[in-house]
Order: sequence, then structure tokens, then C-alpha cells
Amino acid sequence: MKLRLAVPALPLGFSFSAAACGLKRSRLDLALLASEIPASAACVFTKNLVQAAPVIVSREHIHRAAGRMRAVIVNSGNANCATGPAGLAAARKTAASVGRVLGCRQEEVLVCSTGVIGVPLRVAKIFRAIPLLVVSRRARLSAFAQMTRAIMTTDTRQKWAGARFDLGGCEVRLLGCAKGAGMIQPNMATMLSFIATDAAIAPAPLQRALREAVRGTFNAITVDGDTSTNDTVAVLANGASGVQSIRAGSAAYKKFLGALESVCRALALAIVADGEGAKRVIEIEVRGAPSDRAANSIARAIANSPLVKTAFAGADPNWGRILAAAGRAGVAFDPARAEIRLAGMLVCRRGREYAFNEHVAHRKMLASYVPIVVNLRAGRGFARLWTCDFTGDYVRINASYRT
Amino acid sequence: MKLRLAVPALPLGFSFSAAACGLKRSRLDLALLASEIPASAACVFTKNLVQAAPVIVSREHIHRAAGRMRAVIVNSGNANCATGPAGLAAARKTAASVGRVLGCRQEEVLVCSTGVIGVPLRVAKIFRAIPLLVVSRRARLSAFAQMTRAIMTTDTRQKWAGARFDLGGCEVRLLGCAKGAGMIQPNMATMLSFIATDAAIAPAPLQRALREAVRGTFNAITVDGDTSTNDTVAVLANGASGVQSIRAGSAAYKKFLGALESVCRALALAIVADGEGAKRVIEIEVRGAPSDRAANSIARAIANSPLVKTAFAGADPNWGRILAAAGRAGVAFDPARAEIRLAGMLVCRRGREYAFNEHVAHRKMLASYVPIVVNLRAGRGFARLWTCDFTGDYVRINASYRT
Repeated sequence: MKLRLAVPALPLGFSFSAAACGLKRSRLDLALLASEIPASAACVFTKNLVQAAPVIVSREHIHRAAGRMRAVIVNSGNANCATGPAGLAAARKTAASVGRVLGCRQEEVLVCSTGVIGVPLRVAKIFRAIPLLVVSRRARLSAFAQMTRAIMTTDTRQKWAGARFDLGGCEVRLLGCAKGAGMIQPNMATMLSFIATDAAIAPAPLQRALREAVRGTFNAITVDGDTSTNDTVAVLANGASGVQSIRAGSAAYKKFLGALESVCRALALAIVADGEGAKRVIEIEVRGAPSDRAANSIARAIANSPLVKTAFAGADPNWGRILAAAGRAGVAFDPARAEIRLAGMLVCRRGREYAFNEHVAHRKMLASYVPIVVNLRAGRGFARLWTCDFTGDYVRINASYRT
Repeated sequence: MKLRLAVPALPLGFSFSAAACGLKRSRLDLALLASEIPASAACVFTKNLVQAAPVIVSREHIHRAAGRMRAVIVNSGNANCATGPAGLAAARKTAASVGRVLGCRQEEVLVCSTGVIGVPLRVAKIFRAIPLLVVSRRARLSAFAQMTRAIMTTDTRQKWAGARFDLGGCEVRLLGCAKGAGMIQPNMATMLSFIATDAAIAPAPLQRALREAVRGTFNAITVDGDTSTNDTVAVLANGASGVQSIRAGSAAYKKFLGALESVCRALALAIVADGEGAKRVIEIEVRGAPSDRAANSIARAIANSPLVKTAFAGADPNWGRILAAAGRAGVAFDPARAEIRLAGMLVCRRGREYAFNEHVAHRKMLASYVPIVVNLRAGRGFARLWTCDFTGDYVRINASYRT
């Protein structure tokens, strides 16, 4: 299947708008994504026990509307999390307000928030902005670009990705955006990401496709091991392309899943590349583990090790830290069989140093994308994760986020 | 029981020495702790699956010598870990060399190493230094001070602590030292620490006392969540004070345990206070959890959260990050009941913000010791951990440790 990722194309039947409602000082902080006709929707949410009010409300809504939704309203600047009954009421009223102006039920509206936790949401600012936001929505890439900007917090760049493919002579389009730079270790869910497609697919197979696509993409990244309270990925599929409905397990489903995965992967990698303070992306592949689950535990221990991540900030080929992190992952393996490749160079064989040129390794590690391969030679278990290096800028960004 | 911690006193029958053998550039890097008579010994070692050669050899030795030991030899500058059969031979020969000069069996010598992982140990430098090291040992506090200096790696200060107590008219003394600043999350063991005492106690009750003492001290600290491959705590008790032998469960045992715990706690807190780049110690207390184990999981998730630790670097009262870290700890609780106190101030009640003065909180958080109390109001489970803040200096120290 050929995917053309370079030029995103607008899916039919969707419109977008953004506004500066005043939650942030004179910056875009509120966005709307609307489908002009009811769309099948699928969502995955954070598995953090502490869940933001918009996560609770969106889950209720998608259930009540039986997976047929019209719009997503999202604000940055405040996570509306740990805000009690007032926070829940604010999220519900926001959806109701969008529904009134858009002409749909409040249950057909998803609500998302991102920003500081534990500060009451000044929701009146959002209410005031909604009428203009709804009226000014446009089916244009420029309007979508405004939306991608409005959902940013510590992000330094907008993140979007698209895909298209043919189905029975009809072109199907997907267009997605994401935000996220810190508090990133999605657990069966992810940071905020919204994907619009004009494919026709019922809610149940759409949900299944999203779960499959998220597994090796959003759920395979970590910036700091901190799972957010607001993680949400939402897909809206409105069928406006005019193609036949995609059934689970069909060839069309496989095409759709491939396209969805490519959009999710591009967005997930964009989040890691924009990880707070990050200079480079690190791809961690664990092979030869007793099981996939064991491989994942080891990859995650390496990906979240501050010592590994700071060594990458300095492009320091300190493979001993990678082995030590693997050793504390709670998985049984024989260190004396382990092999480690760093930026393509064999640096550890049979659990000990394999003579390598330290200067060459250092130079290779200065790249913006550096792969690590750990082979335990103990089975067929495999996992691949992405993380970023840990720099002084991460500390600078996070030492005074609130004050 | 009264403990006088301020002035460490030398336990009888022990001597110490240190040398610059050349593993580090013109700095002390080799130390010897010897008991003039065979001493009961107890050790706890790292639970990391990747174990350094000296850990493997020391475990063998204490087993073969049935817990009766004479000396500890320790080097810094190289961890002798992931060094294969050559590393094991180096550790064994080091013990044999000390045994020959000291006049004891090699099994009566513990070997410890700390420093970079995966680099072959230039053991010839150690062999050359051993004769002078053995001959120059002295039963003096100044010699002990040299030893505490020789075991340092990224430590910025020496760490020692002592205790004494009376037993049937006889004074018993304990004197301990430790090293450690990074790669600190001891798991049923700890970083390098050596404790000498002239108490008389058999190996079995000594081991039991050490395990008890370590639980709430060395095993309750974390700097970066990275468990070392070389963690070791060793206690040598030679009975030279002349007191009666301490039996498990007796009143004397309780006195001894209290003294041992006080030494372990002082050394563990000294490690956290000297955490790489740290400006302050954070005490994390979780109360009202469903169980002690659940409380520990939550306390550890908070203690290892980069977002919590960087907020403390900036003295930023960002309690939402504390609640979010608790929520991803894998423990079930109701966030709507949670209470958080930061530096003594109530900042979160019933899971949401409790109006507090942000400037006052910021000022209180600038202290060198800041307590967090999280009360889940869901049971009697309790845990207390210590960690440090996460600063740009941690990154600077670790970005180019090897190169």
C-alpha cells in the first residue's frame, strides 16, 4: 500500500476553527473540530487513576451517543483536572454550549483540556468564545493549522500528519494533529490527538482499528515516564468521501488500519522529537527476550532511565547504563549473553565490552535519530519504543511551570 | 535509648588506610578496612540482575567463610561490572592478594568496586598498591576519613556516621561510611556502605539486624530510580569492646538495632542530600493507603517522577504533578478523597485545590529539607521515602560521565 504522507489533504465534510479566549495571555487556546454530518467516533483515554473532568465527560458522551459524534471542543492553558464537581459541570456545560450553537445534542460533543492540573477552569471565557468559534469554522487546511496551534502547551511546534488511499476508485483521506511534549508516557492511551477521516466505518470496527494503531505508536513512546491525567486520542470518521462502509477484517479495513497507523506513528514520533528540551530521538529495540511483554518491560526501563537519557544528551556511549537499566526491569535473563548496538555499532557482546572506537561512537550519537538494539539472545520476544534525550532544558522548562 | 551521633568514636580493633593507585588521576581510589581479629559479617547486595564481579565474589566469600571476615578492600574509578571472566578473576585475585599480606584466607576478604560499568579493570595497579595499603593501616579516625574519601565517585562530600551505647557497663561503638550520588534506587540493598562495630554478635543475628535496619533507611531512598549493579552494605562486628555477645530478640539486640538503624539512616540521608546536582531533600510520606505496599508504590512513583523532581528544583508548588504521579502508580484509590500537604501547608483537599498562598508555599519550598504528605484516607497503609530535586546539574554531571 502506498501512502503519501508529505502533503496532507483535507478530508471532506470537516471544518475547524480556533480562538484566543483568554485562558492564555493573548495566544490561541481554544479550538473546534466539527463534522458537518454525524461521524463514527472512537476514543482511547488515559489509564491514570486520576482522570480529568473532560476525560470523564467525553467517555460518558461517546457511550450515550453510541459512538456517533459531531464535534470536539478543546482548550489549552488548563487541564480541568482535580477540579471537583465544578470542573465536571464546566466540561458538561462547554459541550452543551457547543451543541446549542452547532445544532446537535450535547452528547455528540467531545470535550478535551490540557494545561496545569488543579487550578479551577475559568469556564466563562470559553462560553463567551463558543458562538464565534462555531460560526467561524472553515473546511480549510489553514483553519486546521490554527487548531493545531491552539492546542499547544510546552510544545515548540505544531504536529500534524495525513494519509490517503484509494478504495474502489474513491479517495479516502485522514488528517490528524497532536499536542504533547512533557508528562508523556501514554498508557493504553496517549496525549491529545485528533484524527478526522472521510472514510465510512461503523463505531465498533473504528474503535478496534484505533486500539490496534495506538499499540505500536502512541503507546510506544515516553518522554519522562509520567502518564498524563488528560491523555485522549479521538478519531471521527464521517463517510463523506462517499466510499462503501469498511467492515472489520476486510481488505479495505487493512488499508484503513495501515493509513491510521501511519498517521499515529508520525504524530507519536513528532511528540517525542518535540519532547521537552530534547535534542534527539532514541529508538529502543529489544530483541531475543523471553516474551514480548518482557521485551517491553526492558525497553521501558531503558527508555525511562535518567542516566541513559542524560548520556544521550551528551552523546556519551555509556552502554553500561543501558545494561544496568535492563537488569533492574524485573525480567529474568542471562546478562552474559546480552549484545548491545549503539547507533549501529556493536559496543557490548556476551555481556561485556566489544572493542569500539569511542570517538566514532560519540560522533554517530550526535545525530537527531539514534537507534539502540539490545539482543538478549534468550527467545523471540520483541519490543520497540521511542524516547528522547534528557537535557538541562527539560529541567529549566519544568522547574517553574506553575509559578 | 540515647544515641550520641555528633562525635563518631572509633570502634576498637579496626584499622583503615587509603591510597591513590592510579585508577583515577592523582586522587585516592583504593581503601582498606581491616579487623585485627575475625569479625562477624553481614552483607546485603544489589538485586539488579546485572551484578558486578566484586558482588558475585563477595557473596561467595561470606558464604564460604561462614560469616567470619577480616577485611574489606574497595576501589573507586571502575565498577568492574560487565567485564566477563577477566573481571571475576581480578576480584578474586585482589582478595587473595590482601589475604596474603594481611595473613588471612582470601575468603575472609570482601571486595567492592564503584565507578564506570563495562570498562576492563586495570587490576595490576591495585596489586601494586596492596602491600603498602596493608602495612600503612591505622586505628585512627584520620585514616577512616581517608577511606571515606577514597570511595567517592561523583560524591561532593564524604559521608560517615557513628553511634555508641552502653551494654552492661561496656561502651559499644559503631562507625560507618557510604558513597553514592547517582544511580541510586537501592532495591533490598544499597550503594556502597561499610559499618564497623566492636559489638559481639554472631553472623546470623547480625544479618537479621542489617536487613531490618536497611528496610526503612537505604531501601527508602532514591535519587534517579536507577538501581546500581554494585550496591553493597557490609557490617563487621569484631567483639573487641569486650561486651557479652548480643542474642537475637534480647534487650541488647534492640539497643544494637536502634544504633545500627541510626547510622544507616544518617548515611542514607547523606546520599540523598548529595544526590547528583541536588539542592534539597524531599521527604515523601504516604498515609491512609489500602496497604503499606500500596503506600510504597505511590511514594516511589512520586519520588521518581521527573516532573515532581524538577518542580522542586524550582520550588514550584505544583501539587497536581504529585497527584498525577500517584494516579499512575498502579494502586486503586479514590482521588476525590486525597489530601496533600506541601512543606506543611495544606494545598489539596478532597482531590482538589485548597486555597493557599502560592508565594508563601514557594518560600517554604526553598528550604533544604521539604516534606510532602499525601493522605489517601482509604486505610492504614504507610510509607516514607526520601529523594532529592532534579536540577540542570544532574544532567550536566551525567551527560558526559564516560567520555
